[in-house]
Amino acid sequence: MNFASDNWAGATPEVMASLQRHNGGFAPAYGGDALTAAVKQRFSAIFERDVEVFFTGTGTACNALSMAAVARPGGLIICSADAHLRNDEYGASEFFTGGMKPVTVPCRLGKIAAADLEATLARYPAGNRTGRSVVLSLTEATEAGTLYSVNEIAALAGIAHAAGLVVHMDGARFANAVAGLGVRPADLTWKAGIDLMSFGGTKNGCWAAEAIVVFEPGRWPDLDILKSRAGHTFSKARFVAAQFEAYLGNDHWLQSARHANGMARRLADQLTQGGRARLAWQAEANEVFPVLPKATVARLRAAGAMFHPWPVDEVEVGSDEELVRLVLSWATTEAEIDRFVGLL
Amino acid sequence: MNFASDNWAGATPEVMASLQRHNGGFAPAYGGDALTAAVKQRFSAIFERDVEVFFTGTGTACNALSMAAVARPGGLIICSADAHLRNDEYGASEFFTGGMKPVTVPCRLGKIAAADLEATLARYPAGNRTGRSVVLSLTEATEAGTLYSVNEIAALAGIAHAAGLVVHMDGARFANAVAGLGVRPADLTWKAGIDLMSFGGTKNGCWAAEAIVVFEPGRWPDLDILKSRAGHTFSKARFVAAQFEAYLGNDHWLQSARHANGMARRLADQLTQGGRARLAWQAEANEVFPVLPKATVARLRAAGAMFHPWPVDEVEVGSDEELVRLVLSWATTEAEIDRFVGLL
Amino acid sequence: MNFASDNWAGATPEVMASLQRHNGGFAPAYGGDALTAAVKQRFSAIFERDVEVFFTGTGTACNALSMAAVARPGGLIICSADAHLRNDEYGASEFFTGGMKPVTVPCRLGKIAAADLEATLARYPAGNRTGRSVVLSLTEATEAGTLYSVNEIAALAGIAHAAGLVVHMDGARFANAVAGLGVRPADLTWKAGIDLMSFGGTKNGCWAAEAIVVFEPGRWPDLDILKSRAGHTFSKARFVAAQFEAYLGNDHWLQSARHANGMARRLADQLTQGGRARLAWQAEANEVFPVLPKATVARLRAAGAMFHPWPVDEVEVGSDEELVRLVLSWATTEAEIDRFVGLL
Amino acid sequence: MNFASDNWAGATPEVMASLQRHNGGFAPAYGGDALTAAVKQRFSAIFERDVEVFFTGTGTACNALSMAAVARPGGLIICSADAHLRNDEYGASEFFTGGMKPVTVPCRLGKIAAADLEATLARYPAGNRTGRSVVLSLTEATEAGTLYSVNEIAALAGIAHAAGLVVHMDGARFANAVAGLGVRPADLTWKAGIDLMSFGGTKNGCWAAEAIVVFEPGRWPDLDILKSRAGHTFSKARFVAAQFEAYLGNDHWLQSARHANGMARRLADQLTQGGRARLAWQAEANEVFPVLPKATVARLRAAGAMFHPWPVDEVEVGSDEELVRLVLSWATTEAEIDRFVGLL
Repeated sequence: MNFASDNWAGATPEVMASLQRHNGGFAPAYGGDALTAAVKQRFSAIFERDVEVFFTGTGTACNALSMAAVARPGGLIICSADAHLRNDEYGASEFFTGGMKPVTVPCRLGKIAAADLEATLARYPAGNRTGRSVVLSLTEATEAGTLYSVNEIAALAGIAHAAGLVVHMDGARFANAVAGLGVRPADLTWKAGIDLMSFGGTKNGCWAAEAIVVFEPGRWPDLDILKSRAGHTFSKARFVAAQFEAYLGNDHWLQSARHANGMARRLADQLTQGGRARLAWQAEANEVFPVLPKATVARLRAAGAMFHPWPVDEVEVGSDEELVRLVLSWATTEAEIDRFVGLL
Repeated sequence: MNFASDNWAGATPEVMASLQRHNGGFAPAYGGDALTAAVKQRFSAIFERDVEVFFTGTGTACNALSMAAVARPGGLIICSADAHLRNDEYGASEFFTGGMKPVTVPCRLGKIAAADLEATLARYPAGNRTGRSVVLSLTEATEAGTLYSVNEIAALAGIAHAAGLVVHMDGARFANAVAGLGVRPADLTWKAGIDLMSFGGTKNGCWAAEAIVVFEPGRWPDLDILKSRAGHTFSKARFVAAQFEAYLGNDHWLQSARHANGMARRLADQLTQGGRARLAWQAEANEVFPVLPKATVARLRAAGAMFHPWPVDEVEVGSDEELVRLVLSWATTEAEIDRFVGLL
Repeated sequence: MNFASDNWAGATPEVMASLQRHNGGFAPAYGGDALTAAVKQRFSAIFERDVEVFFTGTGTACNALSMAAVARPGGLIICSADAHLRNDEYGASEFFTGGMKPVTVPCRLGKIAAADLEATLARYPAGNRTGRSVVLSLTEATEAGTLYSVNEIAALAGIAHAAGLVVHMDGARFANAVAGLGVRPADLTWKAGIDLMSFGGTKNGCWAAEAIVVFEPGRWPDLDILKSRAGHTFSKARFVAAQFEAYLGNDHWLQSARHANGMARRLADQLTQGGRARLAWQAEANEVFPVLPKATVARLRAAGAMFHPWPVDEVEVGSDEELVRLVLSWATTEAEIDRFVGLL
Repeated sequence: MNFASDNWAGATPEVMASLQRHNGGFAPAYGGDALTAAVKQRFSAIFERDVEVFFTGTGTACNALSMAAVARPGGLIICSADAHLRNDEYGASEFFTGGMKPVTVPCRLGKIAAADLEATLARYPAGNRTGRSVVLSLTEATEAGTLYSVNEIAALAGIAHAAGLVVHMDGARFANAVAGLGVRPADLTWKAGIDLMSFGGTKNGCWAAEAIVVFEPGRWPDLDILKSRAGHTFSKARFVAAQFEAYLGNDHWLQSARHANGMARRLADQLTQGGRARLAWQAEANEVFPVLPKATVARLRAAGAMFHPWPVDEVEVGSDEELVRLVLSWATTEAEIDRFVGLL
């Protein structure tokens, strides 16, 4: 009963098989191999346009290098108050950009509202001494397991573009968003105004496979050197490409995400059936946030269930209750969920 | 006949099997798992003392984060004119240290002589305005496939320590050095004055497994955050640990290195037998540097042999000759060597 | 009628005379001159203990280099939501620290309350991934022209020290604070827990004379190199020392500040007399913040009065009113004030 | 008898008078004042084209911010082995550029030869992993007191431009060069291919007045923010403008330089007359480099003469001799020179 995080699982059998399949023989190092080239092409197919792809091993690398690519001295990174990039990466983006400052927009259930974005941008007009707004980073799926619709993304990107910002998407759980919304990847990204993104593979079934996707190839010509200078160019680069080959082939990435999302729905449904628990908000991707009595939490933990507390200002919780986060992944089984719910 | 580099091979079957073995189930992310802890212990056993270990995915990350850990503002990194850290990493160490400046010591066949180190340090006395000497980085095995003896390392480290420097070892091919010298890892490192090292696993049979080893645990308490801030902390960290488990178990790392070194000796011997080719210098690890007629080079390439030209100032080469580098790895077979030599 | 800022004035006659007096002859460059040494001693006398002093030409340099001296990777700078260091220096501290992140504590009239500091520190406990709290920066006098008492400084510094932080004071208007509170400089700084400070001379009568004062000499041994590396070590350094000689001699700095503060009281008194205007809050140093009808603001400007609007969330202002800031300096005359008030 | 450096003198009476003249009244801070605008215009007149000007207080600031403006990640700064920017600024350019690496071209008497520049650029071809060549920095007058001719500058700049580099001039002693060569500032700079320069005023008669001059206004739009973020925007900015007003008015800068250069010629002539001393090379600006018997050096010092030893590899000096540097400035008098020579 492991619901701690989707990065506690290993790699899918398909991903492991691809690693094994591509292990033999020799291939040029540092991404000069044919497999890397082929898999990069696959991204263009998925996004229905030519895209430029840079592989790394971590989401933090993708986020921070994306910020470095678009950085300007004394600039501001506009992001949600929940953003992983600001809150969970030890200042990586600040470091890689030479000291850009994250400025947070208030969010509700992980999502930024258009009016709040406008208000934040208005606080930092051109020429102000705090810094100029350089980039908006949106997280999809959000840290709260909620989803921006295509229209919501487009509205926020439009506001940002009008103010001269670049728009980045942190897609650590992009597969869960695409699966949850049932949209085409192109619609949720460049057609909605996303300029570059961190495309995650790790949480959804790879070992260590992430990619920066630039939707206008060549727009940030220093990205390749930024990546190498950061030590994020693997010598045996095909090991990332091999993961992505399996991940992106045969809709494996979407099937994995659909499984995880489906497990979340199953869990949410069972939790709310018969009033076993109330949900702090509705699950839209692969995370479920119930409010549970503390006694129940203790009993679940004693029985081996793994999950994290998730206090959130906007949700009122009784003194004998706790808001927790349950994350489902490609590796979650129905049996685990049933056992968990059975303990309630 | 692939002799381009040891990072053109894949992972050894043992390493792949370990990845497969540890793929099941759930484990805490970011290195909090039991396997990571166990494998770190293994490093202490190998070095015969408590050591602190930080896993990354690339040698550049290890080098640059090592430099960052010991950095001081306006400092100098003293290294060989051949050093990978200065010449082949796109300025990673300069970036991660906030602009430390590499100062090169002349080298002969990849090795720094004590007198040259002393002369270089004397050029930057205390209080000088170019910068203060902060760290000496030695490469073992060197970029020229040669080896410092234990005594040579100790002499250089002694000079550096006397001048107040930290001593780092770039051990991207450390296994080849230990195998080639037939010494204990402890003797070649901390007992000889090495303070911290980049311990390479990738070239010698892993996919992406490198480690910073600190010989006095806790000496650089910011290293863990430096690593996370750089995006070099993998979420599914056990995938590095799993590689190292196989790599370090059953002397697999040394056996792989002995194989590669042995292939180098075989190749060197066959090249020089009957005057097929002259070696620019003797192979001491897993690299062989013959001077070949250009016509021969062309014929070898036409037959599918892969290798890089390796011009070196200190070796005179005729106008119709070329100095080339042949790198042998765990994956090199006798058949390949025999076929290559047969083409001469 | 210039109340735009205290940095719109020139240097006092005393400061100009000192520059003239020390202009002749030759003196060692880069601060090796006797005058620099003597003036540094003067700081120790003023603070009643041995202090270490680093001269620069701007307050931003002092703030950012102070932050750089105490920086740790991935660290947080805790400061008021009003802090100049975060809001008005184009990201200097973020840049010089390699990307430390300012985290703001809510403030009321420029001042941080102890409970709010505690709450902010609690949000970033040890080991959190946003960053560790490294330094608290307090501004005295504050951006709102208010003053922390000695006890308030001591309480905040105590909380910060208990959490392992260094405590910095941005003293761009330190003279106005000392004069306003009528305390000894030692009581307001190191005796209250300040570890290092930016000591301003420019606003209060110098041309370009600022100093970082470290209360435990030698504690940050890299500060001198940080300063030189930043281009903040003047070659003809005596020109800063000469300014400070006059500034600190014969209580000139405090007399200038008392004059400016006195002008502020005079202005405040005249504004409130007969209900000419209401003050948004009481003047405690050399700044006055009245709420004026917009028509009055326009009339004042038309008559040549110079000042800035100063919207503040916590002060309610009618739709036909404006909150403005009036800054008084050593150069302000009673006549200017009387003329200004006469226009109301 | 002070020949230690031209930055041991104070400011000229004209510069002091200008500071005094502009001290009264109020002026907008941070360079928004009318004097600053007027003095910037003066630069355009001097250079016979519209130029963009950024004032700072130190040559290191100008050099490092120039490098920051043109920086690219992982880039190389190509400069003379003598360059102040590499050797005497504590790594400022490395820091401000996020870790660009200075690569030195061998020089003879401070000057780079075209062939050596070409050879250096050839060592770092496009795509190499050490770094890409981004900027050539030339020093005029050189650190050896020699001068590039207009044609020499043009040839070097042409080679650099052909390789895609920006060309910067470190003009800490630009006035001495213009005066020494008897050329127009435009000919020696943008007409010869200089893209931006550090224009020094301090050594030649100001207190602290330096400027970055960009010959194509707007080319590096971030320069203003880079400067402010570095703490190099003075609040009472008119104090720099006032210095430059006097410095650039009435050819004062060139008259000062002509005086210093003339003093150098006088000293050189007297030294060589009657074989009093041999010059290591000919004085071309305001520095003289004689080889003196050690006994003479001691006697001169005992008599109060101030100067620095200046060992240079390319000049052979006997075991009882010493090569020294004698720097002349606007403040040097004939009497000082005569007294010095009289001691020989």
